[in-house]
Amino acid sequence: MPPKIQPRVPRGMRDILPQKMLLRQYVISKIEAVFQRFGFEPLQTPVLELRETLMGKYGEDAEKLIYDAQHREGKEELSLRYDLTVPLTRVIAMYPDLPKPFKRYQIAPVFRAERPQKGRYREFYQCDADIVGSKSMLADAEIVTMIYTALQALGFKSFVTKINNRKILTGIGQYAGVPNELLGGLYRAIDKLEKIGVDGVHEEMAKSQIPASVITKILDLISIAPGNFGEVRERLRDIPIAMEGLNELEQLATFLGDAGVPRENYQFDFSMVRGLAYYTGPIYETVVTEPKIGSLSGGGRYDELLGLFSNQSLPMTGTSFGIERIIDVMDELAMYPASIGKTVTQVLVTVFNRDLVGTSIRIANELRGAGINTELGLEWDGLGKQLKYAAAKSIPFAIIIGPDENATRQATLRNLTSGEQIIVEQSKLAEAITLIQIGTRNDRGRSVP
Amino acid sequence: MPPKIQPRVPRGMRDILPQKMLLRQYVISKIEAVFQRFGFEPLQTPVLELRETLMGKYGEDAEKLIYDAQHREGKEELSLRYDLTVPLTRVIAMYPDLPKPFKRYQIAPVFRAERPQKGRYREFYQCDADIVGSKSMLADAEIVTMIYTALQALGFKSFVTKINNRKILTGIGQYAGVPNELLGGLYRAIDKLEKIGVDGVHEEMAKSQIPASVITKILDLISIAPGNFGEVRERLRDIPIAMEGLNELEQLATFLGDAGVPRENYQFDFSMVRGLAYYTGPIYETVVTEPKIGSLSGGGRYDELLGLFSNQSLPMTGTSFGIERIIDVMDELAMYPASIGKTVTQVLVTVFNRDLVGTSIRIANELRGAGINTELGLEWDGLGKQLKYAAAKSIPFAIIIGPDENATRQATLRNLTSGEQIIVEQSKLAEAITLIQIGTRNDRGRSVP
Repeated sequence: MPPKIQPRVPRGMRDILPQKMLLRQYVISKIEAVFQRFGFEPLQTPVLELRETLMGKYGEDAEKLIYDAQHREGKEELSLRYDLTVPLTRVIAMYPDLPKPFKRYQIAPVFRAERPQKGRYREFYQCDADIVGSKSMLADAEIVTMIYTALQALGFKSFVTKINNRKILTGIGQYAGVPNELLGGLYRAIDKLEKIGVDGVHEEMAKSQIPASVITKILDLISIAPGNFGEVRERLRDIPIAMEGLNELEQLATFLGDAGVPRENYQFDFSMVRGLAYYTGPIYETVVTEPKIGSLSGGGRYDELLGLFSNQSLPMTGTSFGIERIIDVMDELAMYPASIGKTVTQVLVTVFNRDLVGTSIRIANELRGAGINTELGLEWDGLGKQLKYAAAKSIPFAIIIGPDENATRQATLRNLTSGEQIIVEQSKLAEAITLIQIGTRNDRGRSVP
Repeated sequence: MPPKIQPRVPRGMRDILPQKMLLRQYVISKIEAVFQRFGFEPLQTPVLELRETLMGKYGEDAEKLIYDAQHREGKEELSLRYDLTVPLTRVIAMYPDLPKPFKRYQIAPVFRAERPQKGRYREFYQCDADIVGSKSMLADAEIVTMIYTALQALGFKSFVTKINNRKILTGIGQYAGVPNELLGGLYRAIDKLEKIGVDGVHEEMAKSQIPASVITKILDLISIAPGNFGEVRERLRDIPIAMEGLNELEQLATFLGDAGVPRENYQFDFSMVRGLAYYTGPIYETVVTEPKIGSLSGGGRYDELLGLFSNQSLPMTGTSFGIERIIDVMDELAMYPASIGKTVTQVLVTVFNRDLVGTSIRIANELRGAGINTELGLEWDGLGKQLKYAAAKSIPFAIIIGPDENATRQATLRNLTSGEQIIVEQSKLAEAITLIQIGTRNDRGRSVP
């Protein structure tokens, strides 16, 4: 006999067991419904991409995290996808005739060999919606409105979508006189403002060789209260790229007002950067403010990514929900509705003894035919064991058919939560379960007189 | 500027565009509903497994097809999962306290570097349901009943689940005197009976060094009409393992009768083998007979697989739907209901001009709030272009709000299928769309008087 193989998952990866999966499916289905409500449609791309498809898109730091794959007889260099945005862009380049705007969503795992830590996995789901083929700020407004709608649908109350524009960041660089080759370091330093404060950013910039006079000028500008457009506009008025970015954000704000997104749910923040290299216009990041649990969604406009695959140019904008984090947070805060149970099963049809196996099989399948999620007991010498299983799994009902009940074509229907039980005609079991469930739901919702 | 990267997918892989994805989601949701109807619950495992987890489970031929993966700083040897069964077994070994029977389903991609051909992909979805922890033929009967229920739900009419038992195949080997080391070749040859006929199998066995007298004895036995239990039982009565297998199948047949699975939807076939190495008991394979389109589901019992990971032993049985094939076949035979459209979007709210952008944004979001899947036109200088887009995407309705309509808080609702249009109060648009859709559905279903 070969030695046992230790059952393990790769570092930073995990299994999701059924109880957690039911919560996960709830969150995904809610977000998916909102995507469809806004007219986004599903797309599926392979887990594996050609290595050359991924490289040169995300920036060096990100690309270090990409997994490679191969087959011993394969001649292609393959990688596991790092996000869903570059694969979308590849699809757009391969199918130039797709009607535009092309609005797609994709909810699927991506792979990044980051250092594992609590809540961060090397295989995790992204949950993206993007609009391809519109330069208009209407498209960005749709994305931000959708983020608002989705987080509302999930039950989040206090959250704010921070909005900035890469054009304004470029403009700030020009305004302060930062040489182009230092812009990357500048962005990285600004991005840390919230975490390390003004002094920290100062230090960080100095490390990136940015001259002291320039640092002062920048910090002075980005510390202007978020959304203080007048002041920012005044200072940047001679920088065309910055003015363009500011005009875009003003238009975006008007459209968000028309869409009914409350003013407290978005804000302009000129120190928000977003890590990825490919953004070119408005960028968004949504953080839950109460409780303070950080970023749940990020995204932005990336009008030039297609150019890496195609001579055609097509503007694109979109967002990605941090679904793993959303699920963790909803779990911690017990934000799931009571109707999401611990099991999908509504009833266990037990098997009383060998002679009555056929009866239990028949009844179980009749219930299924009536739309009731039903398990059948799988042994005929242990009623107690079957009921213990139902309790362990929190199945709400059990049906018991002994010889006496069966002689009169009846069955015992036991409510495993209350312990109550009633005798029901075998042909009326589905009806009885449905009625009790409706009754329970009404009881729960009944208002105090 | 760097040279363009040619947008391509890896060999044998593909993208699934939205229209096809909607059909795919329909099939998956139907099967998933049946899984839940039988009390199976979702499990998620990583795409990547440790290489040692997969090796030594499937047989040599299969393992040649496994993809490897790695990260340059990673120290683990990783592989992409080859199926969902071995990962399930690993989970069972890692979580010994899961209540048993443990019934899970998983619908997820697996990876096999097979030679690509029409309808066969290197990344494809498996759609599995398994029962862990029951030796009883009740568990196998549940699986076969579920296969029947799922294919019915998808609209398949003429299909048959072929059932055999690895114990009977082992018994046949013993009966004919095939040495143990030649059993693999024996099975492979028998498996080809339908494809290459009796003569072909004869030749194949001879190539595998199986003696001529033995070949005659085997072919004589397996050509006995499928399900002719009496005759087979008579010939194998001195082979205990074969008798055990035959008894199991007889019990299975009784249970399938109790479950109401029609006799024409299953049959015993002693020449059916199934490729994978890990099966130990009943095996199933469902083929659609009219039209003749081959196998749509396979599976069986694998009571010893857990032993590779654990000192504990736990019986397991289950099935895998060939969902890629099911989708292809349903597509070819146009088996999708008319309600599965070409788009999720119910209505496009057009933008008439720059001044009316705000009105269109407001109306679009009101419709969404009322549960209507709504797209917003994303430009304000081309009503014709917006309507052309709606037509290209087969969106059923468009809403047009010009200055005159808006002055009286009205809008034009155009049915893009019939070309008819009506003027509706802006606040009544959701209601109007819902009513027309119900009307259309009733018309379609109206019986001829």
